[in-house]
Amino acid sequence: MLADTVKALTFDVFGTVVDWRSSVARECARVGEAKGVSADWEAFADDWRAGYGPSMGRVRSGELPWTTIDKLHRMVLDELLEKFAIPDLSEDEKDDLNRAWHRLDPWPDSVEGLERLRCKFVIATLSNGNVALLTNMAKRAGLPWDCILSAELARHYKPDPESYQTAAALLGLPVDQVMMVAAHKGDLHAARAVGLRTAFVPRPDEFGPNREVDTEPDPAFDVVASDFLELADKLGA
Amino acid sequence: MLADTVKALTFDVFGTVVDWRSSVARECARVGEAKGVSADWEAFADDWRAGYGPSMGRVRSGELPWTTIDKLHRMVLDELLEKFAIPDLSEDEKDDLNRAWHRLDPWPDSVEGLERLRCKFVIATLSNGNVALLTNMAKRAGLPWDCILSAELARHYKPDPESYQTAAALLGLPVDQVMMVAAHKGDLHAARAVGLRTAFVPRPDEFGPNREVDTEPDPAFDVVASDFLELADKLGA
Repeated sequence: MLADTVKALTFDVFGTVVDWRSSVARECARVGEAKGVSADWEAFADDWRAGYGPSMGRVRSGELPWTTIDKLHRMVLDELLEKFAIPDLSEDEKDDLNRAWHRLDPWPDSVEGLERLRCKFVIATLSNGNVALLTNMAKRAGLPWDCILSAELARHYKPDPESYQTAAALLGLPVDQVMMVAAHKGDLHAARAVGLRTAFVPRPDEFGPNREVDTEPDPAFDVVASDFLELADKLGA
Repeated sequence: MLADTVKALTFDVFGTVVDWRSSVARECARVGEAKGVSADWEAFADDWRAGYGPSMGRVRSGELPWTTIDKLHRMVLDELLEKFAIPDLSEDEKDDLNRAWHRLDPWPDSVEGLERLRCKFVIATLSNGNVALLTNMAKRAGLPWDCILSAELARHYKPDPESYQTAAALLGLPVDQVMMVAAHKGDLHAARAVGLRTAFVPRPDEFGPNREVDTEPDPAFDVVASDFLELADKLGA
């Protein structure tokens, strides 16, 4: 059975494990309140997230040297503070706001599901987030990772093949004993292309109520589950 | 106070957190019993450990390309199986015996001390052991690391400066906010030379009852403690 040949699960994090949108909006609203500024903080979070793909693209293409997500987030934040006309943040305040991405809340099923999966598998992050971000997030949110893995360790962002291959190598496993878990089909197709197993866990609320998300199963994936509890059921954990 | 400027503790593992000698001897004795071979398994463990420094030295000098500890352990094991005249191990049995180093028991104070330290600090491994070895060890022994860091991530073995610098960079911290914890003075002096804080926790039983260990405090180190519980006391955790 597939679940018996798989030894480790690697998880996409933003959107798959944690609800970045409402967490970032909450952190931004907190700063706005302190500064007497009001804005559409969900839109601010959406714009911040929207800047992330293109800025990683500049690293993937070689236009920028290796740059961590913390630094890419900060580059996008500096533009957004201007766009949303948010005044008077000190360097420390900007740095703290940038670390909103270290303080994201898990989806309601994430911690319980991971605790169950951890009894049967090695569970690790495999995120474009940097190691410090993922470590701080796990500590605050109680995510029980066995190991923090990141695209940072390969210096190649997902979906570059090196990001998945490096993760399997660091776990000391052949790629077909590692299963990538993600809410995003592109991530899973890229993992599958280098030989990893795949589990699709769509998160229809990731982008809020007004944006449709592709939740259709795809026969290319080994497992499809509606949340981490169902994933644990399907993998016998 | 020093303990308030330090944000993360990085731990040497073999000897500092776990008792490699009695654990490896136990694993070897188990194989010996199954094969009907008797030998001085403590001496076997000592020889195995003694082969580790020179084999890492070949990597550090550039004579060998980057090679994980799992592979270096295996090179030494293959010599020892011949020296101790242990016959008839299949490839799977040799591989399993080599993973004795993934199944090391913690010192009696390690888990409780780490649990306390973890409430105040980010706690991470910083070992020459590879990520897979450290991850499997932590899972089996219940070591509550926030993050698995390894010389493997720098591709430089301790005491090369890059091993410590890479760890601090991955934690997103300046070196003087990271404290290296080790039972070995050479490790601490090398960490201190690149700016890390240092805590010396001597483990007088590391090499068994017949080999003297240097447990003398050294004023160069920021903290000296007899075990991880005293370390937690001294760091206010």
